[in-house]
Amino acid sequence: MKPKKITIIGVGLIGGSIALAAKKRRLAGEIAGVFRRRATLRKALKFGAVDRGTMDMADGVRGAGLIILAAPVLSIPRLAAEAMRYAESGAVMTDVGSTKSWIVDEIERMSGRAGRSLFVGSHPMAGSEHTGVEFARPDLLDGSPCIVTRTGMTDPSALNRVKGFWAELGAKVTVMSPAEHDRIVSLISHLAHIVAFSLAGAVPVAQTRYAAEGFRDTTRVASSDPELWADIFLTNRKEIKSAAGAFSRFYDDVVRAILRDDRAALVRLLKKAKSKRDNFAYGGKK
Amino acid sequence: MKPKKITIIGVGLIGGSIALAAKKRRLAGEIAGVFRRRATLRKALKFGAVDRGTMDMADGVRGAGLIILAAPVLSIPRLAAEAMRYAESGAVMTDVGSTKSWIVDEIERMSGRAGRSLFVGSHPMAGSEHTGVEFARPDLLDGSPCIVTRTGMTDPSALNRVKGFWAELGAKVTVMSPAEHDRIVSLISHLAHIVAFSLAGAVPVAQTRYAAEGFRDTTRVASSDPELWADIFLTNRKEIKSAAGAFSRFYDDVVRAILRDDRAALVRLLKKAKSKRDNFAYGGKK
Repeated sequence: MKPKKITIIGVGLIGGSIALAAKKRRLAGEIAGVFRRRATLRKALKFGAVDRGTMDMADGVRGAGLIILAAPVLSIPRLAAEAMRYAESGAVMTDVGSTKSWIVDEIERMSGRAGRSLFVGSHPMAGSEHTGVEFARPDLLDGSPCIVTRTGMTDPSALNRVKGFWAELGAKVTVMSPAEHDRIVSLISHLAHIVAFSLAGAVPVAQTRYAAEGFRDTTRVASSDPELWADIFLTNRKEIKSAAGAFSRFYDDVVRAILRDDRAALVRLLKKAKSKRDNFAYGGKK
Repeated sequence: MKPKKITIIGVGLIGGSIALAAKKRRLAGEIAGVFRRRATLRKALKFGAVDRGTMDMADGVRGAGLIILAAPVLSIPRLAAEAMRYAESGAVMTDVGSTKSWIVDEIERMSGRAGRSLFVGSHPMAGSEHTGVEFARPDLLDGSPCIVTRTGMTDPSALNRVKGFWAELGAKVTVMSPAEHDRIVSLISHLAHIVAFSLAGAVPVAQTRYAAEGFRDTTRVASSDPELWADIFLTNRKEIKSAAGAFSRFYDDVVRAILRDDRAALVRLLKKAKSKRDNFAYGGKK
């Protein structure tokens, strides 16, 4: 069932890409954007990402069947509360935040007095080191994994609505608990960012002039927004502690094998890492 | 002065790319390859990387004005000794190994009885996670940094010959000591590989199915050849110890800031890392 209106709160790289993809696939009669700053509103309209933009929440969510929170992690619960105040009865709400337990807990605590919540947490696993609607692309989510969370309070039809929406944008949807999501992304996303930031931070600028593609790729996500990622890390501390420990153990084993000139142990560790990476990148076909 | 013949010992990704580039720019009358295995020889001929291939070192280096050792790091000194036995007087020799002090020391110890060496160490900073001549490209070195090493034993005209050769292939040549080279690459290349291998090794295979582009890029070089990289790491142990320490300090600072919920310290660290990475990737223009 095509809703007459989809509202996206926060129209940057992800929100803008969702808007462009939903427009392209004609998933709603109107795609509206809610903005915090006038400059971003103007940019999104100029870029053609949304049909209509407003800085007024009531105006933005009025008549929307689906509301998508695509703002930085820390602001999502507050924006959800504000949107709920004005949303029409039956409107389904989701988000795109990179941590889920904290966001889902906060929002369900506010919304769940009836024992059911029309809020469903989502995390489309797409993006880049860039921010801003000018980097948005209608195909950003196409073929990407998208995790949708279910809790004891999740309304089944709201869950189906949200799953269906991401699937229509071409994402590969998996449903799991917020806790399981946080454990998985602590490893495949948050840890990768911590490691990339640390590598970029550890190397003196003067020496990077000799760096080649290996360094460029390994550090790419270290060009991501520091404030945005600080909040993602801070809202997933428990799982990051365990992921960071797993990395440290492997890294220490590799470095120690090098320092004690233990070629057999070193090759064994590197082969294990390569086989996992090849399995991920080439599906074990290489 | 265009030499009548250039011989490349070891024609894989790098050796093959050098051969293709030298052929394309007509830098020699003949490009010959010396091979260890017949299958690789056949593949290189089929691929058109070399004009002539042989498994006989004497045959391969006969008449060559420039000999390039493009074999795995650990085998370079032994191949250099063998090639020197058959090389014509005045032939200049260089290599492409990713560590320099160990290789240059070993070769100068053998060759330097006259107080001068026609061997000049080189490290063209290009490549990929792939191995084999089938991945060779004539433009691989074009625009890449290339470090050429100078020691007290380096013959000045041999140095100029080698510098000129890389420059003709489009590389950005810098001359420095083997020790300085090893310090720089321990940070920008070896450390990046250790970190990528460790990240790929630390994440369970089952969870990588949700991973997106960030994980793919951060771990890309973990698909590199484990034996090859083990030997690179093991021949640069001293510098890797110090580079690994620099990484660990930054990483520990980031993880500790997250765990103690210190947003100000965390943002400061991430901003420092982003600014270094942006400076490298966008020349400070972003």
